[in-house]
Amino acid sequence: MEVAYYKDKFLTGVEESVVPIQERGHQFGDGIYEVVRVYDKKPFMIEEHLDRFEHSAEAILLKLPYTREQLKEIISQGIERSEEDHVDVYFQVTRGIAPRLHFFPDVPAVFSMIVKPSRQIDPVKKQNGVSVTLLDDERWSNCYIKSLNLLPNVLAKQIAVNKGSEEAILVKNGYVTEGSSSNIFVIKNNTLYTTPATKGILHGITRKAVFKLAEKHNISIKEENFTPDFLKSADEAFITSTTAEILPIHTVDETALPTHFTITHQLQESFRSLTK
Amino acid sequence: MEVAYYKDKFLTGVEESVVPIQERGHQFGDGIYEVVRVYDKKPFMIEEHLDRFEHSAEAILLKLPYTREQLKEIISQGIERSEEDHVDVYFQVTRGIAPRLHFFPDVPAVFSMIVKPSRQIDPVKKQNGVSVTLLDDERWSNCYIKSLNLLPNVLAKQIAVNKGSEEAILVKNGYVTEGSSSNIFVIKNNTLYTTPATKGILHGITRKAVFKLAEKHNISIKEENFTPDFLKSADEAFITSTTAEILPIHTVDETALPTHFTITHQLQESFRSLTK
Repeated sequence: MEVAYYKDKFLTGVEESVVPIQERGHQFGDGIYEVVRVYDKKPFMIEEHLDRFEHSAEAILLKLPYTREQLKEIISQGIERSEEDHVDVYFQVTRGIAPRLHFFPDVPAVFSMIVKPSRQIDPVKKQNGVSVTLLDDERWSNCYIKSLNLLPNVLAKQIAVNKGSEEAILVKNGYVTEGSSSNIFVIKNNTLYTTPATKGILHGITRKAVFKLAEKHNISIKEENFTPDFLKSADEAFITSTTAEILPIHTVDETALPTHFTITHQLQESFRSLTK
Repeated sequence: MEVAYYKDKFLTGVEESVVPIQERGHQFGDGIYEVVRVYDKKPFMIEEHLDRFEHSAEAILLKLPYTREQLKEIISQGIERSEEDHVDVYFQVTRGIAPRLHFFPDVPAVFSMIVKPSRQIDPVKKQNGVSVTLLDDERWSNCYIKSLNLLPNVLAKQIAVNKGSEEAILVKNGYVTEGSSSNIFVIKNNTLYTTPATKGILHGITRKAVFKLAEKHNISIKEENFTPDFLKSADEAFITSTTAEILPIHTVDETALPTHFTITHQLQESFRSLTK
C-alpha cells in the first residue's frame, strides 16, 4: 500500500492535495530530499542517508523540522503503515510556506514523505546490462547537495530515454561526472575507477557500499576523473543508485562494452548479501 | 485582494492546499514561470512575457496546457477578481502530477497563478540606490530558461541580504552575469553596458525596455561581458527586474559608486511613462 505524509501527519492517500501554491518546493525547488530503500522492513544504510540529508540541509542553510530520531520514527511508521516488506521511502524538506520572495522566509520547514512498493529493475537488465548516452553536464556547481532542483537531471534522463537508453552519463570539461540519477564506475585491469566525491557529484550511498564491497573482494579503487574514451575502453562499467542498486552497462553511445561483467556480477551478489 | 488559480479553476484563497506531493513542481522544480506587472489594470509588456514563457516551455520540452489567448484570458480574469489597479501576476506551469520518476510522465501540464497587490520598492532606494554583493555564479548553463530551479538564486539572494545588501551580483569565469533576480547595467562615458543575452542569463523584459529607452535618449548600448572591476569603476550602475523596475546601485561590495545617477534617473522617469 502507498503511504503519504505531509507537514505533520499521515494523509489519506498520495493523491491528497496538501501543498499550497506558495510552498518553497513548488515555486523555487527550495529544498532537499532522500530516497531510502527498505529490504525486509529494514531501511538500508539509513544512518548514511540521514547523514547526507543533514549535510544537504546544512549546505542550503535549512533548519530541519525534525530531529534524526523523529525522522527515523516517521519513516518507521510509514514502513509499518505500508504493510509491505520491500518499499522505497522518498522524503523531502522544503523551506516552508510563505509569500514568494527569494530570501528566506521566517517560517518552519515542511516535511513530505511517500512510501511505496520498491521499484524493481528488470532482472534481464541486471544480468545483461543497459545502454547509456553521453551528454553535457549542464548542472550547477553543487551537485553534492541532494536538492529539489532536478530539471537538468530530468531533461538529461528524458534525452537518454528518447535514444532508447537507460541513463544519461554526464560529461563536464571533458570528464565524466555521473549519471542523471546514478554514480558511475569503470573497471579496467581489475581496478575500479569512479569520479572523486567533489562538490560536482552526488556522494551516493550505493557508491559508498560498492567501496566496502570492493575492499572485501580485494579490488583496488581509484577515485579519479576519467574521460568518455576511458569509459568506452572499459573492461566493465556499471552505474549505482539506491533504486537501481548495481546495473551493468553494455553500451556507451554507439560503443559496445565487454559483457562478461565478471566483477560487476560479483559485486551485485555481494550487494544482495548486504541487504539481507 | 489576493487571487489564486490552480489546474483549472480559481481558488478560495492563496492558502488553499491544492497541490499533491507528487507534483513535478514540488519534487523536481520541473516547470517554468513568469512574473508580470500590471499598472492601472494593464499587464505591462504581456506579449514579451508570453513570448519568453513559450520559449522557456519549448526549451524544457513542455507542452503548455493553454493557448496564448487562454493564458491571457485567465490572467485578465485574475486581475479583475483582485479588484486592484496595480498587481503582480505570478504564474507557472509544471510537468504535471505523476509518480516520481525522472523521465517525462504522460500527463497534462499544470498551471498555477497568484495575483497580488504590487510589491512597491522603497522610493528612497529608487532615488538613492542600493548596495550589491558580488558572488560566484554557481547556476546551471541555461539561465535563459525561466525555470523553477531557483535554489542557487535563493541562496545568493540570502547571502546578499545577510550582508545588508539588496541583491547578489553573480560572477562567472571572471565576468559579471546578472543579479540573483535581476539584470545589471553599467554606464561609463555615456555608454550603457550590459551582459550579452546568451544562454547564461535571463533575457529580462525590463532589460529589453531599457534598450528601447536608451535608444530614445540616444544613449549607445554595448552588449559586452564586463568584469567586477569595470562595474566598480562605473559612472552609474543599476539593476532591472519586473518588480524592481530600474534600481540604481550606490555600492558594490566595499566600493562606493558615484550617486548623481543622472542617466539612471532619466531612464527611470522614461520607464514610468511607458507604464502609463
